[in-house]
Amino acid sequence: MFKTRHPLPGTAPATLTPLDEGEGFQPVIHLIEYSVEGVTERVVQTVEELPELGISDGKTRWIEFNGLADIPKLEELGKKYNLHPLALEDVVHTGQRPKADAYEDQLFLVAQMVYRDENDRLCGEQVSMFLFKGLLITIQEDDQRDVFDPVRERVRVGRGWIRKLGPDYLAYALIDSIIDHCFPILECLGEALEELEDELLDRPNKACVGRLHEFRRTLVQLRRVIWPERDLINSLLHDESGLVSKQSKVFLRDAYDHAIRIMDLIESYRDIAAGLLELYLSAVSQRTNEIMRVLTVISAIFIPLTFVAGLYGMNFKYMPELEQPYGYFVCLAVMIAIAAFQIAFFKRKGWL
Amino acid sequence: MFKTRHPLPGTAPATLTPLDEGEGFQPVIHLIEYSVEGVTERVVQTVEELPELGISDGKTRWIEFNGLADIPKLEELGKKYNLHPLALEDVVHTGQRPKADAYEDQLFLVAQMVYRDENDRLCGEQVSMFLFKGLLITIQEDDQRDVFDPVRERVRVGRGWIRKLGPDYLAYALIDSIIDHCFPILECLGEALEELEDELLDRPNKACVGRLHEFRRTLVQLRRVIWPERDLINSLLHDESGLVSKQSKVFLRDAYDHAIRIMDLIESYRDIAAGLLELYLSAVSQRTNEIMRVLTVISAIFIPLTFVAGLYGMNFKYMPELEQPYGYFVCLAVMIAIAAFQIAFFKRKGWL
Amino acid sequence: MFKTRHPLPGTAPATLTPLDEGEGFQPVIHLIEYSVEGVTERVVQTVEELPELGISDGKTRWIEFNGLADIPKLEELGKKYNLHPLALEDVVHTGQRPKADAYEDQLFLVAQMVYRDENDRLCGEQVSMFLFKGLLITIQEDDQRDVFDPVRERVRVGRGWIRKLGPDYLAYALIDSIIDHCFPILECLGEALEELEDELLDRPNKACVGRLHEFRRTLVQLRRVIWPERDLINSLLHDESGLVSKQSKVFLRDAYDHAIRIMDLIESYRDIAAGLLELYLSAVSQRTNEIMRVLTVISAIFIPLTFVAGLYGMNFKYMPELEQPYGYFVCLAVMIAIAAFQIAFFKRKGWL
Amino acid sequence: MFKTRHPLPGTAPATLTPLDEGEGFQPVIHLIEYSVEGVTERVVQTVEELPELGISDGKTRWIEFNGLADIPKLEELGKKYNLHPLALEDVVHTGQRPKADAYEDQLFLVAQMVYRDENDRLCGEQVSMFLFKGLLITIQEDDQRDVFDPVRERVRVGRGWIRKLGPDYLAYALIDSIIDHCFPILECLGEALEELEDELLDRPNKACVGRLHEFRRTLVQLRRVIWPERDLINSLLHDESGLVSKQSKVFLRDAYDHAIRIMDLIESYRDIAAGLLELYLSAVSQRTNEIMRVLTVISAIFIPLTFVAGLYGMNFKYMPELEQPYGYFVCLAVMIAIAAFQIAFFKRKGWL
Amino acid sequence: MFKTRHPLPGTAPATLTPLDEGEGFQPVIHLIEYSVEGVTERVVQTVEELPELGISDGKTRWIEFNGLADIPKLEELGKKYNLHPLALEDVVHTGQRPKADAYEDQLFLVAQMVYRDENDRLCGEQVSMFLFKGLLITIQEDDQRDVFDPVRERVRVGRGWIRKLGPDYLAYALIDSIIDHCFPILECLGEALEELEDELLDRPNKACVGRLHEFRRTLVQLRRVIWPERDLINSLLHDESGLVSKQSKVFLRDAYDHAIRIMDLIESYRDIAAGLLELYLSAVSQRTNEIMRVLTVISAIFIPLTFVAGLYGMNFKYMPELEQPYGYFVCLAVMIAIAAFQIAFFKRKGWL
Repeated sequence: MFKTRHPLPGTAPATLTPLDEGEGFQPVIHLIEYSVEGVTERVVQTVEELPELGISDGKTRWIEFNGLADIPKLEELGKKYNLHPLALEDVVHTGQRPKADAYEDQLFLVAQMVYRDENDRLCGEQVSMFLFKGLLITIQEDDQRDVFDPVRERVRVGRGWIRKLGPDYLAYALIDSIIDHCFPILECLGEALEELEDELLDRPNKACVGRLHEFRRTLVQLRRVIWPERDLINSLLHDESGLVSKQSKVFLRDAYDHAIRIMDLIESYRDIAAGLLELYLSAVSQRTNEIMRVLTVISAIFIPLTFVAGLYGMNFKYMPELEQPYGYFVCLAVMIAIAAFQIAFFKRKGWL
Repeated sequence: MFKTRHPLPGTAPATLTPLDEGEGFQPVIHLIEYSVEGVTERVVQTVEELPELGISDGKTRWIEFNGLADIPKLEELGKKYNLHPLALEDVVHTGQRPKADAYEDQLFLVAQMVYRDENDRLCGEQVSMFLFKGLLITIQEDDQRDVFDPVRERVRVGRGWIRKLGPDYLAYALIDSIIDHCFPILECLGEALEELEDELLDRPNKACVGRLHEFRRTLVQLRRVIWPERDLINSLLHDESGLVSKQSKVFLRDAYDHAIRIMDLIESYRDIAAGLLELYLSAVSQRTNEIMRVLTVISAIFIPLTFVAGLYGMNFKYMPELEQPYGYFVCLAVMIAIAAFQIAFFKRKGWL
Repeated sequence: MFKTRHPLPGTAPATLTPLDEGEGFQPVIHLIEYSVEGVTERVVQTVEELPELGISDGKTRWIEFNGLADIPKLEELGKKYNLHPLALEDVVHTGQRPKADAYEDQLFLVAQMVYRDENDRLCGEQVSMFLFKGLLITIQEDDQRDVFDPVRERVRVGRGWIRKLGPDYLAYALIDSIIDHCFPILECLGEALEELEDELLDRPNKACVGRLHEFRRTLVQLRRVIWPERDLINSLLHDESGLVSKQSKVFLRDAYDHAIRIMDLIESYRDIAAGLLELYLSAVSQRTNEIMRVLTVISAIFIPLTFVAGLYGMNFKYMPELEQPYGYFVCLAVMIAIAAFQIAFFKRKGWL
Repeated sequence: MFKTRHPLPGTAPATLTPLDEGEGFQPVIHLIEYSVEGVTERVVQTVEELPELGISDGKTRWIEFNGLADIPKLEELGKKYNLHPLALEDVVHTGQRPKADAYEDQLFLVAQMVYRDENDRLCGEQVSMFLFKGLLITIQEDDQRDVFDPVRERVRVGRGWIRKLGPDYLAYALIDSIIDHCFPILECLGEALEELEDELLDRPNKACVGRLHEFRRTLVQLRRVIWPERDLINSLLHDESGLVSKQSKVFLRDAYDHAIRIMDLIESYRDIAAGLLELYLSAVSQRTNEIMRVLTVISAIFIPLTFVAGLYGMNFKYMPELEQPYGYFVCLAVMIAIAAFQIAFFKRKGWL
Repeated sequence: MFKTRHPLPGTAPATLTPLDEGEGFQPVIHLIEYSVEGVTERVVQTVEELPELGISDGKTRWIEFNGLADIPKLEELGKKYNLHPLALEDVVHTGQRPKADAYEDQLFLVAQMVYRDENDRLCGEQVSMFLFKGLLITIQEDDQRDVFDPVRERVRVGRGWIRKLGPDYLAYALIDSIIDHCFPILECLGEALEELEDELLDRPNKACVGRLHEFRRTLVQLRRVIWPERDLINSLLHDESGLVSKQSKVFLRDAYDHAIRIMDLIESYRDIAAGLLELYLSAVSQRTNEIMRVLTVISAIFIPLTFVAGLYGMNFKYMPELEQPYGYFVCLAVMIAIAAFQIAFFKRKGWL
């Protein structure tokens, strides 16, 4: 689910390993400038065209740099905005643990967004953010799918606080969007879990177990992503760099609550899923037991009878019983008696 | 058990998503005013009729707003009392984690109450509270069932401290009522657990396992609700806003103790329930073992005998044994010897 | 093991719910006054006869109030000594978690004592203590069985420090007696565990599992009582009300050590008991395996032979083998060969 | 492994319960006096002969009091050196949790040493130490076996720091010796674990499980001893009584590291041992499965054939097949076809 | 994987136990001196040739001492650079827990590097470092394989910060190299895990379990090494000796992140691997169940039929059915009816 790129062991720190040929997407740069008055939005071709750092015209600028295939362009961006080289390295080595690192004049955030792709599979994508005074730079792996459209819409329409507060609120809005997109995913998982539960209780079968394992695996992965995301929000809440305003912190506390609710749900699902496997194991044991019981009862009744039948099927010259006129009927009666006794025995044992 | 509503991912924070058509209940507003001298209680139709904030006539006011279907009315309430928009959002998005959020002049509390409905099923309902100086606003999902009747009765009758202390004591009384209603529920669960235990030890069967799973699931859910409720009380205990008086804190410490006792019970039940499943698995293994033993003993005794019988049932022209006058009896004797030997063998193995 | 009474949900806090008719014991009040010089001890009929609070004649007074059936008498006691109403509520609602609550001039302690009754079953009984300057009030559920006789004896005889130090030392002596009475109980449990262990390794049987489950259940309950008792002692050790003298704290540290040793033992037993169930499961699996092996070997050898015998028992008109003079002996030889081959095969597999 | 003696419940604290007749060893007292210049060493008969406390001649004195059977002698020792009565009680009640208690002018340490006795079984023995300025008293359960010979040798020979530093270094050297003696024991356990592992993977058998259980039990016990020993060293490291010099603390940090390494090893072994039991269970399941497969294949092939044979062994007057000249051969062909079909079926299922 | 040497119990601390004959490698000493201007690098034969401590010519010196077989040489090194004797002991007793110990003018670091040897097996090797002002001494177990070549290359080429910052950065670079070399190892493990997963879901077999156990064992060992390595970096991050510069700490924070990511991966793998064993157990149970079902169905159908056949194979003189002209056909019909009934029964049970 989460593609991880890690530094080549031994390379100098802050080396930007280029992606393999064909891997990754060519970057597309969007520039959105907004204030309470209005919004302008455009696609920018080169890094040079981007506005300088430190313009204090009251506008908030959001630079979206989506696509990691063009390392030199990324380096250019890094040079222009003085992005910390170690942070840039983390941008390129996707699959980072969500975290917030404070550098001198910038706050570097890494988050992992989780969404369903067109085939309804869970995907993860790393979103890196650099928060400056008046400016937010976000860097995604590609320009196609993300969970930020509602935020962009809010910026355009000017609904709520978004155009009144600065880039820290924008960063909050993006993180909140990432967190909130986990709710429908967890809802789906919850439904899948209930289906599995019903199936396992009604007719336990092999396919369930595979799906259950898949389910647990997904939970392990989600947990690995959400847990540090909670820490990320927490360190923003206790940020002392002055880049996160007090107003935004009220909202971040809300996002923090959401993250905890998601963790709670994940933990509950883990508990229940662990119980389900035990349920399945007990169901299989139970069924084996039942099958054995049928086999045992039938075998135990007929094997002795078959022996008696075999006994009188022997061809000895002199077998007195065979000569008796009622021998056959006596024999039948004995057989019925044996069977009746055994049935009574198994009834008492509760096996019938 | 707990219906959860979460924000539509991407909507601006503090958006009050209206409930679906037909979902939820129309709000009913109760106003209870009381002081040591007396009580007045009435149903109010519009928000306008409600008293303003900040009347200092020594009376305590309790506004019950029960029902979430009318979002505009709720917004009106929010405007009148300056309820924080993020808090109002949490009111509407039921299924919140219990928590206490301090805003400037108000304390926002969310609790989850657990009770049995008319069909004896466990239900959860969110209770939101806004605590002001002299005023408590509570918002429930519906106006029909709750666990607060004894508290209302105490207000009416004036028993105990309730009319002597302010809205913080009222909030304590409501939370305490929520916590204490868990005791009979846990008592029921405890009895169910003991029944399950007896059944599993006496006659382990498939239905038990389903009930055991249901039981554990309920515990997981209860735990998810009670655990943060404990934290809620704890943060009230350490409240520094001045809205919670020192006298009320003594009582809250008592409620805190109750919450811990409930957590303790839940944890014990979880431990015991986990042990029960292992017990069941071992019982099934044991029974399979027993069944196999019966099958094996019967098969092992009769299969060789049947073979011997089959042997002398063969139709070969020349079989010397068949011609012997005592052949049949010798054969019978051999069979009895074989059976006796095997029975002795199984006796020694302890399988008989 | 521990009878729990909880408040009726919704009743005002500090309500003393009367016990059901016939439940509980009528209170018996003992008054013991002692100093280094001597002891006087008597049974007191009414609360009025009890000495007032705050007599400073250097004597230590110990009031034992044993029996909870007479709520009005208890309320009278509460009024006389100004016992906190919430504390009194906890006295009546037995089954409290051990704890220490500090009120203005008094320290309220709840402990759970564990002992074996005449039928050798584990029982729990709540002991509540109110510690004042110069006075200790203890309240038990009944007057018959407790673990305090040796302490009373030490007071009478004046052995050790007990008459030299005040009521805080007396409280320590009682708590220490409660803790130390767990050692022989744990010793018994340890022996039971070793017996179970031997039995499970030698001849695993169904009854063991029930006893093992009982054992684990007892450990869960003991742990639930001892763990907070440790916290109780700890909060006495760090008491700042001045009611616990420095000398007594040295002794309390010793009691604290004992409590930790008991927790250590309980945890070890839990670990070993968990291992025992796994041991049992593996033993049952192993035995099933062995039984199956016997069944399989016998069936696999004789079923083909029986088939061969059946084959030549057929009544077809023309079966050339039957006519051969040595047909029978050839057939026997083939059977022996088949059996020998199979035995060799199973030997190689290690199943024989 | 560890014999535990606990106080008789209810006895006054600091009571020295005498050992049972024949239990314990008569004490032997060694006195070793050393300084950088030299060593004198002798066995002392009575406590009176021992040097007084507080001689400041620059010598370090080590009193070994080995054997607990003579309580009066121990009390005499306690009186002479003003040993704290509660500490003395812990000396006699062996099986204490390792700990460090600070009293006014003395530091009381309890450690548990683990060693193999002559029969190669693990044994535990309690070592109690009283650390004074210039004097160390150690009290062991007996005078015969311990792990301190190398330390005594170092004192005699004067190798390393031991004669240059005071009794705190001596205490460190003893504790270090206790800790380091766990390494070879853990090495043995590690080898035993690897053997078990190989055996369980190759030929899982019943005896393994017993040994595995024994192994895990030993780990539980070792862990119960080592864990608090680590705390003991830690509290020496943070000692503020001035009895432990800064130089000795550097060495204690080293011993602390060793204790952590041992805990690490124990935890790893526990993890691996838990995995081994699962391995065994899966191996037994797997074998049962295999056995069942053989049984099923053989039964499934021959039971239908035997039925066919039985069919034509019936003695009905009119059975047309029996009269056919080639009936027998057709019948044989049908049987071979049935068998072939079944073998193919089982081959496809992968059971053959 | 990790060879552990521990001190002989009882030897004086800081004793350098010589390695066994033939064990260990003869030391090779490399001296690398570099500054921004340039690098010199040479192999040094004797310790005497090495530069003194405390030369302040702005150069950074890196002494590599690889091989532990020559204890006197090591002691010489220790004397020359005043290495702490306890630290030197840890150098020789390989298999130490990674840690950082601060001595007066030096920082002693122990790390464990993990790499694959030529046969692709995981190996561990201890790297000890002494960090001084301007000097770093590293001591490895042998001179042949390590993970530091890229670092040496960076020093030679002067890429990045390495020649601009001092020996603390060099130490960071080495530790970072050790940490980063875990990524490809974990990647391999991840692939192995996925393979195992596929195999267990498709065709569970015995060999998987052995490999799974091996896998989990490796994780336990890796975790034991990486966990304290994280602490090692953390204590460098909070170093207060002044030997670690602020610039290097920024980089160390990065290495710390990497260590946490590795721990995260290890934990995820552990979770998934634990799930896999359960998966395997359930698959084996499921298969046993399936096999039993086949056996039971076949046995249950044919055993009664065989009995009927045997019945009419009896040789009683007077058996009326045998005389009937259509007896045989009626008998066949009855048999078919029995079989049909049973098949229907098993179909309804879902066993067919």
